Amino acid sequence: SKTAWDFLPDGWTTEIVDQEGSSKPGETVFRQSDETLRKVTFPADFKPITQLESARLGIVTPEMKRVAERESHLTAEQVRDEVASGRMVIPANRVHLEHQLDPMCIGRASKTKVNANMGASPVSSGTHEEVEKLKWAEKWGADTVMDLSTGGDLDECRQAIIENSRVPIGTVPIYSMIIGRKLYDLNLDIILDSLRHQAAQGVDYFTIHAGVLQEHLQYVKDRLIGIVSRGGSLLAKWMIDHGEQNPMYTGWEQICEVMREYDVTFSIGDGLRPGGLADATDQAQLAELSTLGELTERAWRKGVQVMIEGPGHVPFDQIEYNMKLERQLCHGAPFYVLGPLVTDIFPGYDHITSCIGATSAAYHGASMLCYVTPKEHLGLPKKDDVKQGCIAYKIAAHSADVALGIPGTRDRDDELTKARAALNWEKHFELSFDPDTARAYHDEDLDVDT
Amino acid sequence: SKTAWDFLPDGWTTEIVDQEGSSKPGETVFRQSDETLRKVTFPADFKPITQLESARLGIVTPEMKRVAERESHLTAEQVRDEVASGRMVIPANRVHLEHQLDPMCIGRASKTKVNANMGASPVSSGTHEEVEKLKWAEKWGADTVMDLSTGGDLDECRQAIIENSRVPIGTVPIYSMIIGRKLYDLNLDIILDSLRHQAAQGVDYFTIHAGVLQEHLQYVKDRLIGIVSRGGSLLAKWMIDHGEQNPMYTGWEQICEVMREYDVTFSIGDGLRPGGLADATDQAQLAELSTLGELTERAWRKGVQVMIEGPGHVPFDQIEYNMKLERQLCHGAPFYVLGPLVTDIFPGYDHITSCIGATSAAYHGASMLCYVTPKEHLGLPKKDDVKQGCIAYKIAAHSADVALGIPGTRDRDDELTKARAALNWEKHFELSFDPDTARAYHDEDLDVDT
Repeated sequence: SKTAWDFLPDGWTTEIVDQEGSSKPGETVFRQSDETLRKVTFPADFKPITQLESARLGIVTPEMKRVAERESHLTAEQVRDEVASGRMVIPANRVHLEHQLDPMCIGRASKTKVNANMGASPVSSGTHEEVEKLKWAEKWGADTVMDLSTGGDLDECRQAIIENSRVPIGTVPIYSMIIGRKLYDLNLDIILDSLRHQAAQGVDYFTIHAGVLQEHLQYVKDRLIGIVSRGGSLLAKWMIDHGEQNPMYTGWEQICEVMREYDVTFSIGDGLRPGGLADATDQAQLAELSTLGELTERAWRKGVQVMIEGPGHVPFDQIEYNMKLERQLCHGAPFYVLGPLVTDIFPGYDHITSCIGATSAAYHGASMLCYVTPKEHLGLPKKDDVKQGCIAYKIAAHSADVALGIPGTRDRDDELTKARAALNWEKHFELSFDPDTARAYHDEDLDVDT
Repeated sequence: SKTAWDFLPDGWTTEIVDQEGSSKPGETVFRQSDETLRKVTFPADFKPITQLESARLGIVTPEMKRVAERESHLTAEQVRDEVASGRMVIPANRVHLEHQLDPMCIGRASKTKVNANMGASPVSSGTHEEVEKLKWAEKWGADTVMDLSTGGDLDECRQAIIENSRVPIGTVPIYSMIIGRKLYDLNLDIILDSLRHQAAQGVDYFTIHAGVLQEHLQYVKDRLIGIVSRGGSLLAKWMIDHGEQNPMYTGWEQICEVMREYDVTFSIGDGLRPGGLADATDQAQLAELSTLGELTERAWRKGVQVMIEGPGHVPFDQIEYNMKLERQLCHGAPFYVLGPLVTDIFPGYDHITSCIGATSAAYHGASMLCYVTPKEHLGLPKKDDVKQGCIAYKIAAHSADVALGIPGTRDRDDELTKARAALNWEKHFELSFDPDTARAYHDEDLDVDT
């Protein structure tokens, strides 16, 4: 199977060699973490900007070192090699690194990560409340946060979130591209300007729905619920109105150049993700996934880090297949999935219906799980919804890591089991993910300490 | 692989034949739902009592007919044949049938079932409150209910629950056997008297921990949390104190005779189930599971219906193996599992940690899921805990049924998806499992109807 090494920029070559080389300009030989020696040739005037580019040159960046500290089962060299292969990303905008960003990674060799969505809307919430939700999500274990604001002062809110966050921040830039403008008037220049502006603010990853193509739209007709991705449906409408191809697809290389400049990571959006069990794993979804593979290759050739967004709503029996197909078509680029929900009839409990799917997804290969709160499909999450969503997804991520046998991940479970066996309630609470809640339940009936 | 047909009582034979037979005493030939003809010979004076015995004679009972109405993808003859093979049980005590019991089945050919535990304790709750919890559990979809009372007036509470329930009632009779008595004084006569008493009251299934043997106890020593099953630890202590084998194991055939008289179904307990991830799938658990297979064979030879209880706490990657091993060792007897929890560090959220495991368990072969409430490990469930536990488990059961492709199970999901696509909020709520909760979340921010 292929990796990012198979999709180097023009003018680059690589091979596994037997001997350490002398260091000539435009050539490097370095020892990989599997002890093999890799030789890479590249244009002599090349200067690496992104983590992927550094990794390709054998450079261990400070961010890779920090990631290795946080993933105690990995060395910095292993992190570098995973990044070089495209199987891991370190979403760390150079601007955000100057604020409080604590570098982290997303990839199957590391622990499973959780993303929390938030954002102001035209009718609710504001910058202050969103920063509070950010802090709250960090407290409850979110590894990244997406600012999906669609109303209020988007720029101010985004800036405040970036300045206050220790975790990487993602956005869906098309949301702000259409503020104060007709969708019809969107074009590549506006897209690039908007991306450049948000990249300069310090956003760490962008969801770009470049995989929704004109030729995919025919497959949407037979669906029960059409296109549910907001970005996907905006671009579908644009293509229909213009009779032209998705400008994010045709302009992909120019977009890559903006991304590279700040080392913004792609989260290539699945604009045709299914909106219900009935539409899962259908031709629309699979055709787009194949295009996401092509976009991955093109991004890697431009030196940009890539992860891939995935469904959504998937029956439990189809999850493993979905994970394996992504791994194959996108050459191991980290898969970032939204749940998936494994049933549709429990609105109000979709943090639960989806964390079931998320556990299976992570076990079968997803690297990051986008949380779903109890408010999903019903309204915008408030502070407690954010907490409930985070906790359900920490459960999914941790359970998958234990099942995958990532070293050390079960230690706390075992300590808690021992505390339980010893009837040591205080230690039991301390080792709990949410000690206050555990204590409160216990104190409800203090007399039945059996 | 073997079925209950391989474990007929002494003096019985069966074979697949080519021709319909004349009906002689002690012989019957009937057409099975797969169109083959089965001939069964049996003692001429035999009168069937249990559903299993009727099924073996080709008789479709009124209870099987009712079950087929409730499982619209199955015919009454298919139900009969599943019962005859031992892969399905219909827990319907003849006494309970005279009250309000609405017959249901548990088996992998039918929809996944959910059990809710309740029961009074020495320090909390009473008969009235438990009957209210029963009604509440029925409202939220529990298919069976276990009365695990350990305090208060056990007899009165059990009687009230049986008289008021439309669902089968299970108990763990050893809990009442030791009330007002030293554990040391327990003996087979007391066990049989107690079972006879509860059977006459109308209990539909008994958890009997007959699989915990003297020779298994050595395997418990290396565990982090020893024996967590209350029945299991009581019997282990009894065996250690007496230096004798488990009296429920040695007296199994006599116990079977009591069960048969009222058609009480066995839920053979897993007294050595693991109490934490670290102890899962260990030698103690597996040795006992093998004994549960032996007890299944012996019960089938006595004409008694059997299901098998399972863990508990199991890492996500070990669930499929556990389900397959039970199916093999217990010849397809329905597996009734407690979750399992897939992580131990989220007390207060164990309805979630365990419904993840339960979904996977049902998908891989479990027939009934014993709910876990948010109070698990912390205290006794109150009314809202019962609701939260039931809903988490209806999610697990339904998601597994959809994944297994049981005909018709996804219809409501698809209807809800269509209502969602049409932005038909009223229909969306109506099709929701908990319409009031969905509506309440939605109404929190009525203005953001997007």
